[in-house]
Amino acid sequence: MMTKSLPPLAMAVLVGLVPMETASAQQADPATVQQPNVALRRLSPDQVRQVAPALEQLTQQPLYGEVWKRADLSPRDRSLVTIAAMIIRGEAPALSYYANQAIENGVKPSEISETIVHLAFYAGWSKAFAAVGPVHEVFAKRGVQQQDLPPALGPLLPLAVEEDEARSAGVRDSFSNVSAGVVDYTNDLLFRQIWQRPYLSARDRSLVTIAALIADGKAQQLTYHLNRGMDHGLSEGEVGEVLTQLAFYAGWPSVFSALPVVKDVFAKRQAAAQ
Amino acid sequence: MMTKSLPPLAMAVLVGLVPMETASAQQADPATVQQPNVALRRLSPDQVRQVAPALEQLTQQPLYGEVWKRADLSPRDRSLVTIAAMIIRGEAPALSYYANQAIENGVKPSEISETIVHLAFYAGWSKAFAAVGPVHEVFAKRGVQQQDLPPALGPLLPLAVEEDEARSAGVRDSFSNVSAGVVDYTNDLLFRQIWQRPYLSARDRSLVTIAALIADGKAQQLTYHLNRGMDHGLSEGEVGEVLTQLAFYAGWPSVFSALPVVKDVFAKRQAAAQ
Amino acid sequence: MMTKSLPPLAMAVLVGLVPMETASAQQADPATVQQPNVALRRLSPDQVRQVAPALEQLTQQPLYGEVWKRADLSPRDRSLVTIAAMIIRGEAPALSYYANQAIENGVKPSEISETIVHLAFYAGWSKAFAAVGPVHEVFAKRGVQQQDLPPALGPLLPLAVEEDEARSAGVRDSFSNVSAGVVDYTNDLLFRQIWQRPYLSARDRSLVTIAALIADGKAQQLTYHLNRGMDHGLSEGEVGEVLTQLAFYAGWPSVFSALPVVKDVFAKRQAAAQ
Repeated sequence: MMTKSLPPLAMAVLVGLVPMETASAQQADPATVQQPNVALRRLSPDQVRQVAPALEQLTQQPLYGEVWKRADLSPRDRSLVTIAAMIIRGEAPALSYYANQAIENGVKPSEISETIVHLAFYAGWSKAFAAVGPVHEVFAKRGVQQQDLPPALGPLLPLAVEEDEARSAGVRDSFSNVSAGVVDYTNDLLFRQIWQRPYLSARDRSLVTIAALIADGKAQQLTYHLNRGMDHGLSEGEVGEVLTQLAFYAGWPSVFSALPVVKDVFAKRQAAAQ
Repeated sequence: MMTKSLPPLAMAVLVGLVPMETASAQQADPATVQQPNVALRRLSPDQVRQVAPALEQLTQQPLYGEVWKRADLSPRDRSLVTIAAMIIRGEAPALSYYANQAIENGVKPSEISETIVHLAFYAGWSKAFAAVGPVHEVFAKRGVQQQDLPPALGPLLPLAVEEDEARSAGVRDSFSNVSAGVVDYTNDLLFRQIWQRPYLSARDRSLVTIAALIADGKAQQLTYHLNRGMDHGLSEGEVGEVLTQLAFYAGWPSVFSALPVVKDVFAKRQAAAQ
Repeated sequence: MMTKSLPPLAMAVLVGLVPMETASAQQADPATVQQPNVALRRLSPDQVRQVAPALEQLTQQPLYGEVWKRADLSPRDRSLVTIAAMIIRGEAPALSYYANQAIENGVKPSEISETIVHLAFYAGWSKAFAAVGPVHEVFAKRGVQQQDLPPALGPLLPLAVEEDEARSAGVRDSFSNVSAGVVDYTNDLLFRQIWQRPYLSARDRSLVTIAALIADGKAQQLTYHLNRGMDHGLSEGEVGEVLTQLAFYAGWPSVFSALPVVKDVFAKRQAAAQ
């Protein structure tokens, strides 16, 4: 069902996933389950048509026939954006389709792995763990090996010390009297370790962070991360297409909450550039 | 378990749904699954009582004994509101109960189908697809046929051209330099095609949109859609009861975030009417 | 797998839960399912390492080796905070691990039960019902009996009448013309009945309410409940650690949306105390 012989448009609709377990005698006692025999039930195009014919049609056109192919944001980047949205929105079962598609679109398995690690801090631990099962299935089918994945620990990228001092001082001055724990983990763990891991580029970390913030309606934190991402190389055109992609995958309201914030960041950067 | 012979109060508590698969030899290979034999595990009232006796009691009284029967909003409309909340809040498994109840309350299968299509744009693609499985199960049990459903494509309702020009110009002027894609799909697809499909009344589209925005805490987009909905015929009394229904199904905080926005819209419309 | 013989660090990573059904002939007809034979598929540490080695490492250190052991908030309170976050964020399957851990940390089964009842009003009915299945499994394994649970109905704690009059008048004056239903259920049911049930202390009700509001990004309702919680005995240090715990379990953006609100409440209370 996940083979390359299926035409893309037929695959595009197979996104209504729910966990399915195939049973066996050994699974009767949960304590014995080490590697459960797990499969996923996928909705067939026929089943979608038997509930909402227009949804199947709209998925083919414009979503797959047009949106995914628009200029200014590559299919590879659209996959990262879509995966980030699904992780933070609790739609992890769909990753068993979209993580596979991401690899077809040029995202490396190591980048999917590191996106999950990165988003543990932005979507919370349980949302990251929810992504592990479906991605494990995709990796297993494709024969991804341990050496293809980022290690747990390893050398970090060099820190831009001056910039980091300004950032960390801001957090400390604002909130050390509110939550010393949050300040310390923000400065020492999230920004000086996680963001400096070399397995996802700074630009891609910003891309998935921005996508996650928009997809989860967190417009408040968007100004900082949008500026950071554009400093890391994201263009106005790419950000505009992140919004287009997310209109479909996170819904119009989340995108319209983000639009005024993005507009303001664009305007201030243009003014500063003159 | 879903038959009419069950008293309503006993059915009312069967809402803790998780997907359950009944196994068969043919399902061992996921590639062979075309129409998986799917059932749903439902919590019995006894199981709810074995965890939280008060939750079972409160579901009977006041939720089913009182709230669902309140004046100013029909059970039919309460079903649409509740379904919209569940779709946007990622609670789709509960639809295998609530979609059936909606039909009992007078919602047409075509209206449930079209609500899913409509909310794909407000809740995002994956939340809409998540609704397909449980609703497919309800439709199959009730013998809903293809001809009972809205077609993928068909004639649209006539557009109120002047009003649409003002709306679309506002979106274009504000955001065409931020995301041309969002502007184009908002104007050409969402408002000129989806909203104009004749399979759900404008008033009902507004009802499910308003319910979804409140249930997902999107107070920012509420002012526009509340005015649009009241222009389409929703009364203050109905909106007040949408809030009462959602207090229980989306939680008090989402409703209290919406209350000041609704109050402001009511006041401005009353002032303008004088 | 849930026995005490497993070392805590090995158990800590078993949090990627999805429902699993073990099949039997009797379950083929859902109408016959009274007590379905339910188990849960847990991710093994190996499976997590095969997708994101750093996620497994970070779960051990700093999350379990450090964060859960920090001063100023007991493991018992961290369990309540984490459970509240999971319920409101739709992560109920993880409760089959975390509800068990909570009992190990000193939370009484009656307090877990009452937290579910309380959060039905803050997270919505379906999120509360979603918690019933996993908690039922934990209670059954531990032999929790009906007499260990809070009854559906029972004597209430005495109401602080003057304080309640001020609170209820505020709600009524602000919103009785918007939604009489919301006003009535807020005053008569939520605050005069649910909050006055004696099965969870006022301090703990505030703790889970505050945790739920932060975890769901509802900063708007936080000021009132933070003041109420600190009146009920929560200290600044405890609130700071609630934020630290939630940074990991609800993600950094939700916590950073709450930080300015908490800072403001702390400052105003300090000024008022002088």
